[in-house]
Amino acid sequence: MTDVTDETGLDLAGLHDSLADPALNSIIFLNEVADWFPEAISFASGSPYSGLFSIDDLSRYLHSYRAYLESECELSGGQADELLFQYGRTKGVIHRLIARNLAVDEGIEADPEAIVVTVGCHEAMYLVLRALRARHSDVVLAVAPTYMGLTGTARLVDMPALPVATGELGIDFDDLAGQLKSARRTNLRPRALYVIPDFANPSGITMSLPTRRRLLDVARAEGLLLLEDNPYGLFGDGRRLPTLKALDRHRQVVYLGSFAKTGLPGARVGYLVADQHVSDGRGPGLFADQLAKLKGTLTVNTSPIAQAVIGGKLVENDFSLVTANSRENVIYRRNRRRLLDGLASRFGTDDTISWNSPDGGFFVVVTVPFTVDDTLLEHSARSFGVLWTPMRYFYDGIDGDNQIRLSCSRLTPEQIELGLDRFRDLIHDQRA
Amino acid sequence: MTDVTDETGLDLAGLHDSLADPALNSIIFLNEVADWFPEAISFASGSPYSGLFSIDDLSRYLHSYRAYLESECELSGGQADELLFQYGRTKGVIHRLIARNLAVDEGIEADPEAIVVTVGCHEAMYLVLRALRARHSDVVLAVAPTYMGLTGTARLVDMPALPVATGELGIDFDDLAGQLKSARRTNLRPRALYVIPDFANPSGITMSLPTRRRLLDVARAEGLLLLEDNPYGLFGDGRRLPTLKALDRHRQVVYLGSFAKTGLPGARVGYLVADQHVSDGRGPGLFADQLAKLKGTLTVNTSPIAQAVIGGKLVENDFSLVTANSRENVIYRRNRRRLLDGLASRFGTDDTISWNSPDGGFFVVVTVPFTVDDTLLEHSARSFGVLWTPMRYFYDGIDGDNQIRLSCSRLTPEQIELGLDRFRDLIHDQRA
Repeated sequence: MTDVTDETGLDLAGLHDSLADPALNSIIFLNEVADWFPEAISFASGSPYSGLFSIDDLSRYLHSYRAYLESECELSGGQADELLFQYGRTKGVIHRLIARNLAVDEGIEADPEAIVVTVGCHEAMYLVLRALRARHSDVVLAVAPTYMGLTGTARLVDMPALPVATGELGIDFDDLAGQLKSARRTNLRPRALYVIPDFANPSGITMSLPTRRRLLDVARAEGLLLLEDNPYGLFGDGRRLPTLKALDRHRQVVYLGSFAKTGLPGARVGYLVADQHVSDGRGPGLFADQLAKLKGTLTVNTSPIAQAVIGGKLVENDFSLVTANSRENVIYRRNRRRLLDGLASRFGTDDTISWNSPDGGFFVVVTVPFTVDDTLLEHSARSFGVLWTPMRYFYDGIDGDNQIRLSCSRLTPEQIELGLDRFRDLIHDQRA
Repeated sequence: MTDVTDETGLDLAGLHDSLADPALNSIIFLNEVADWFPEAISFASGSPYSGLFSIDDLSRYLHSYRAYLESECELSGGQADELLFQYGRTKGVIHRLIARNLAVDEGIEADPEAIVVTVGCHEAMYLVLRALRARHSDVVLAVAPTYMGLTGTARLVDMPALPVATGELGIDFDDLAGQLKSARRTNLRPRALYVIPDFANPSGITMSLPTRRRLLDVARAEGLLLLEDNPYGLFGDGRRLPTLKALDRHRQVVYLGSFAKTGLPGARVGYLVADQHVSDGRGPGLFADQLAKLKGTLTVNTSPIAQAVIGGKLVENDFSLVTANSRENVIYRRNRRRLLDGLASRFGTDDTISWNSPDGGFFVVVTVPFTVDDTLLEHSARSFGVLWTPMRYFYDGIDGDNQIRLSCSRLTPEQIELGLDRFRDLIHDQRA
């Protein structure tokens, strides 16, 4: 079509502001960078290990879910098929399975009607922020460094995301108080605070039980909704702590769940639990019902086929994702150990390089004596064959210039060793 | 948890305006109403017929797609599995298959890089409107009556959707000129016009070839992007007309595609073709690249498993959805005939009842001599066991008070006859 011209005159300045925001590129980076440099060893993506999964598992999960519909939900075969093939309930069809999973694995007693199944956790974040951003003055707070999915979705609804320092505890309460005070002084209305209490992405910090209780108390006093994101909670070395939602006695917490790490990334299924009361004028209802109205418009419903894959996995594992991930957890623990030992053996006597030692999750943060940016990353990929993530991506541009996030969830021990050798070469090169 | 209190103080007035909008409830209605009244015969939902589909088709499609990845894309088995199981390319993984489908079925030569695979067509609409709504003054126009997916997603981005009359041609050019003039006089900036040129939902009207050409000319002169939605184009009685995108020589058209009717609703896969040039400041790029940035934040990527289901169906049918739907098309044609004949035999001598006779698509519009609203619908469901859709849903509240949309895509001939008997009883009841 050589005769095609373009006279629409679209340019970036004429499009929504979010498109000029680095946060949106960062997510695509994490999603795709390994494909851009297929020869490089990637410490970049936080994708889970999927080597134990086979295509036959997909078919089996679909059949397990269908069998569950027939036996436990008393659907006929034809009804079960319609449920899989057609559009369906806006809030999702595996809500009862998710409620059972939350009871078994997290000690959370969730009303299935308070659950909305979403297209990954990103859509869940979007729905909550879209609902809460009613006026120009509405803002969300997020512990910084934070996952850019939150800052990115906030951009889509023109909602400022104010950073709160992480500190030693996973949240700096003094900074939180200061941020709230200064926001209100400028007539902003803080609606919610986003936190990842377990093995946070990217900091790796886990909040202690007293910190969790204190956070619930502070949020209650301040009238703040807590948005609790928990993608990595199952992947720890030691005893698991109760989630904020499990401790929640005043419906202060909207729980954001993801099956990307615990189920299968390719299903793109997440969910939220929003049991807050919101009357719709016609009678009592849940915040989840309001969020479902937004979801019905945004994506109609989450693919029932994708839900069935996750549903089948839940059914086959007696609703426990701890059980389902027992073999993966051995791999994650081994890889984390290997990565930390590998850093120690290479940089243990180097005072200019430091790193944290999280006891769970997928990530380790390394602090280096030079500036870390996209230019360095590309140099690292091309010249040294190793990928990682600049920490500035998680600081919304305000910090992190000397830090690197390393993820080890998808690598073999041999790849970790080779990748760390290349990483060492990069660091030597930068200091030379 | 009887000791749980709720102190978040959320109320509807404190949430986003869109939640008070009837458009958002209408979509949930269409999606779920048949489940609310399982005993009723439903002329309401526009779901496709899925009776020819079996769960084994899903597994086979997954394997067909995987085989395609191995043979045509030269991926190893492990690479193909990773592509299915993991996160992936933000713009989607079946873009080349979609481009081949568009060439085979529509005569559209689409650059695969201009395609973004989305979570149904709703997400595609959202991405386009989110990008275009840069200032408060930006508005979209839509032929009224129109699909509420468009008006609903416009609400999510606080973008007014101005109605343009349908008229005899499928678009009233005088009304379009008037709307543009009056919008600009009030300092609004019309960015795009949404149309369904083939068997429109709900009006059933198909634009003629001269109308299509004139619409392209007018849009070019006015600097309007055309958003062409085409969910029903394959389902007609006669010769198919070229889409606007097939006629587009100036990159004026963003094509919105859906596999909900032609592939499988439960996959929730749609796409857009946006080949307009938009520089991102670093170099040339496509509008699709900007939309992908929004998509990466909103839903990260479309489930590769869901994409694989559609991909497998395309591969198995030599990329033709016309071929894939040959048996369904016989059913739709039969049902449309049955519905129109059934209306004629019941109301043919009744001057107060009229209806249109579309030669394709899923819908017939009936005009009646009384007010049609949700109260009547509930009465119809409870007392007469028949469901349908009030046309006012498609007029954004400004018209359609005496009209009813009937859909026949999912029914058997016997259900159509019984449903029409019940519908006749309702009409007699209303006039009594």
